Amino acid sequence: MKFPQSIQNLINHFSTLPTVGPKTSERYVFYLLKQDPETLQKFALALSELKEKTTICQNCLAIAEFNPCQICADHKRNKSTICVVAGSRDMMAIESTKKYNGLYHILGGVINAIEGIKEDKLNIKQLVEKIKKNQIKEIILALNPDMEGETTAMYLTKLIKPHNIKTTRLAKGLPMGANLEYADEITLANALKYRNEL
Amino acid sequence: MKFPQSIQNLINHFSTLPTVGPKTSERYVFYLLKQDPETLQKFALALSELKEKTTICQNCLAIAEFNPCQICADHKRNKSTICVVAGSRDMMAIESTKKYNGLYHILGGVINAIEGIKEDKLNIKQLVEKIKKNQIKEIILALNPDMEGETTAMYLTKLIKPHNIKTTRLAKGLPMGANLEYADEITLANALKYRNEL
Repeated sequence: MKFPQSIQNLINHFSTLPTVGPKTSERYVFYLLKQDPETLQKFALALSELKEKTTICQNCLAIAEFNPCQICADHKRNKSTICVVAGSRDMMAIESTKKYNGLYHILGGVINAIEGIKEDKLNIKQLVEKIKKNQIKEIILALNPDMEGETTAMYLTKLIKPHNIKTTRLAKGLPMGANLEYADEITLANALKYRNEL
Repeated sequence: MKFPQSIQNLINHFSTLPTVGPKTSERYVFYLLKQDPETLQKFALALSELKEKTTICQNCLAIAEFNPCQICADHKRNKSTICVVAGSRDMMAIESTKKYNGLYHILGGVINAIEGIKEDKLNIKQLVEKIKKNQIKEIILALNPDMEGETTAMYLTKLIKPHNIKTTRLAKGLPMGANLEYADEITLANALKYRNEL
């Protein structure tokens, strides 16, 4: 005894999503079974249109609606600063702060020895080309403060150095709402090391 | 700055799923963006066909491919025993044990005062009709051992009693692999109360 074919089929599809196992997938499908057919059709349409209606911005390499994307096409943005991020979602996170007015460069990942992601798989060549055009004053490395992010930042710093461009990275320290008592040693050590004068 | 419309659209759809918030939904969508268009089309098709290719078995009220469903149509199954479950997934869970050979009756939920689910919203009338046909020897109440399940079981027991049908419920006790040390008091109390002679 198995699920009806059409249910099992959709369960299999949902199971391919990250962190979704067969049980969670089942839960999703049985939730959807309770929805009206119209809702399902709209969901299916959104899914089938996902790739058709998105493109890659050939300047920053972000997933976007248009090429060039909204940000790269915006004349009000400061074109002499580039913020290097691993992926489009990191870019969106920085955009949501509304505190950055420069451009972006999407690496498409970070160097990860375990997963076999080497430098040549990332959009580093395109970054170097931008650097060579000689209009860039600052490169902000906005990578995650973890092993892979640090490795990638180090690699990029070495690469950028000969071009004499100011290279910065996001501040490390305590996040808002943190509790000193529960902060891990590295975070606390960074908070001390990079302490600010009042 | 927002996500491209087609991405935001799909994020909204995934966010409607149980336990899926906007961040998880984003993760799903960006995972899907990396897949080839063909995979997405198949996923979309599975979604749009979900309701078209499923029906409700008019005997047990389970979601099924055919009406009557595979189980109700099976002549080898014991038609004098009915296992009452809250939903189709509970039925599937019992089926997967391969230890039950009777029929099922899907309640379509349990009595839940907080969520406003009363007896009249459940498939109780249909159960009473089956009982009145006088061919049933045992009704197994396979409901979750929680507040709502117990309330529903109590309600059904009262309803079935006048018909003089044997009514049973699933055993309560320690689950396989449990650790006495970490078992909650109610589970342990039940394990003691319903202890078996060796």
